[in-house]
Amino acid sequence: MYSTSQLLTIVKDLFDQESFLSEPQGLYAPIDYTLRLGGKRIRPVLLLAANQLFGGDVSQSGHAAVAIEVFHNFTLLHDDLMDRSPLRRGQPTVYRKWNENTAILSGDTMFALAWRYLLSQPHPNIQTILQCFCDTAIGVCEGQQMDMDFEQRGDVTETEYIEMIRLKTAVLLSGALRIGAMLANAPEPGVNALDQYGTHLGLAFQLQDDLLDAYGDVTTFGKQTRQDIRDNKKTMMYIAAMRQASIQQQQRLTELYADASIDPESKVSEVMAIYDAVGVRTAVENMIQEHFEQASRALDAIDEPSDRKQPLVEIMRMLLNRKS
Amino acid sequence: MYSTSQLLTIVKDLFDQESFLSEPQGLYAPIDYTLRLGGKRIRPVLLLAANQLFGGDVSQSGHAAVAIEVFHNFTLLHDDLMDRSPLRRGQPTVYRKWNENTAILSGDTMFALAWRYLLSQPHPNIQTILQCFCDTAIGVCEGQQMDMDFEQRGDVTETEYIEMIRLKTAVLLSGALRIGAMLANAPEPGVNALDQYGTHLGLAFQLQDDLLDAYGDVTTFGKQTRQDIRDNKKTMMYIAAMRQASIQQQQRLTELYADASIDPESKVSEVMAIYDAVGVRTAVENMIQEHFEQASRALDAIDEPSDRKQPLVEIMRMLLNRKS
Repeated sequence: MYSTSQLLTIVKDLFDQESFLSEPQGLYAPIDYTLRLGGKRIRPVLLLAANQLFGGDVSQSGHAAVAIEVFHNFTLLHDDLMDRSPLRRGQPTVYRKWNENTAILSGDTMFALAWRYLLSQPHPNIQTILQCFCDTAIGVCEGQQMDMDFEQRGDVTETEYIEMIRLKTAVLLSGALRIGAMLANAPEPGVNALDQYGTHLGLAFQLQDDLLDAYGDVTTFGKQTRQDIRDNKKTMMYIAAMRQASIQQQQRLTELYADASIDPESKVSEVMAIYDAVGVRTAVENMIQEHFEQASRALDAIDEPSDRKQPLVEIMRMLLNRKS
Repeated sequence: MYSTSQLLTIVKDLFDQESFLSEPQGLYAPIDYTLRLGGKRIRPVLLLAANQLFGGDVSQSGHAAVAIEVFHNFTLLHDDLMDRSPLRRGQPTVYRKWNENTAILSGDTMFALAWRYLLSQPHPNIQTILQCFCDTAIGVCEGQQMDMDFEQRGDVTETEYIEMIRLKTAVLLSGALRIGAMLANAPEPGVNALDQYGTHLGLAFQLQDDLLDAYGDVTTFGKQTRQDIRDNKKTMMYIAAMRQASIQQQQRLTELYADASIDPESKVSEVMAIYDAVGVRTAVENMIQEHFEQASRALDAIDEPSDRKQPLVEIMRMLLNRKS
């Protein structure tokens, strides 16, 4: 039985042992840079934890774990370019350190490399596992598109927003868990319950991201805070604020998000003042708590020994208390 | 036995029957647009022709054929953005008709959709076929990177250039042929000979592209001619011209490609005048001829009935005489 920190060590070792440098250097140096920036490695740890939960041999599932993290970093690389984010994990993003074309092409290559790792993962039912990975990838792209579409809209509902973050974030956590479970030949009800755990964990995780963007500390967050406000992103912070605001506050929020001539920093201050005034922080904290509880219930329903569930319980607690 | 034109009809029907529209529309409309622009559909036809050559059931290999064409169009979508090409098949490219982020994300989704089609292709040895597809995809990315790297260099040799176009163009033709052959359970020597046919066909094809960029007609070519010269691309036209030019002409060519202050249209005229003077057209035409002959010899070496080779012979002749 591996604990969460042991699983994380396994994942770190996998990345330390793996070489991502090859020719042409212009293609592979940004890939190596991205994959060595670190990060929480939550997705590969989830994959291995799911594998262990159903009695899988964790030491035989390493390539799938690497695949899921390489895929995740591919999406970050392209998202950072599309969102024009200057920093990732406190370091310059690839399109800033190199250029836009490098970010596009090295990203494409990472997507292909993710497939290569997964294809080198021996399993009798590999086709089903690959199909799950493929559906996951398409879901993530759909979520990112919805995210961009929502920037142009002022009427995004809470339901629409939850569906967007389910696709953009939760689907990949669920996908990692499903793949880990399938590699261990888990029974279907178990795989589905784990999928539910991943969905709620992912929703809680993304809502936390929204919260940390507004209320996180720039030194621990690893990227610029309040960027969602500058980018007019209608995150759950904005949606919940609109719901709880007075008509006057609603009008002002709408204006602040629509008028490009307002100085960005004044806009940030004013939006934050409204968030504080209407208590949006508590509202979103409650939503996060609710999703963690639902994740917890999904885990309880799985018919496997509770000590094997321990890492998944720990990951939930870790994420609940995260600062970045 | 299907002729080339019958195979092309099968491919066209596959695309006519397939729906690429889904939600969110912002993601799928550009995909549908791209895949309905048409094009020569050479890669899926090659895949089916290879399948038929080794006695495969062409009607059962449609999803793989669609996959290879969807992948090809994904690379075009991203390449057009990276190369800033305004036109593709005579129509606005996706990043121009929509925007850059759409080109990135719809392209990523097409890559995933290509996998989905291939994964829905039933075959006992699907993992090997998927690995071939994956290696092909990575090769194409490496070729595109080398192409971009070469724009910054003045000393690209003919050997380096051939290696670049082998990866950028030939690898995908070979990949399509290999996949078609493997789906028909072809013996390994046959698959390898077909790979050689694809490599030389691809090299001839790309060298023709270089030739058509300089000497093609804009109305039949379907995209802007002489764009390689404007973009300082060291294609085989440039490399062969440098080899055959006088020292004075070499110096002038180098200047024309290095000095960004020269008016683009004057530059095009002067470069074309040097190409004409040193007879680069004939030199490159001879190279193309040589690769077609090598492709032909590779095909001859395959131990299958010659009537089954007929479509692959026809495709070679068709490409040899193409104007666009």
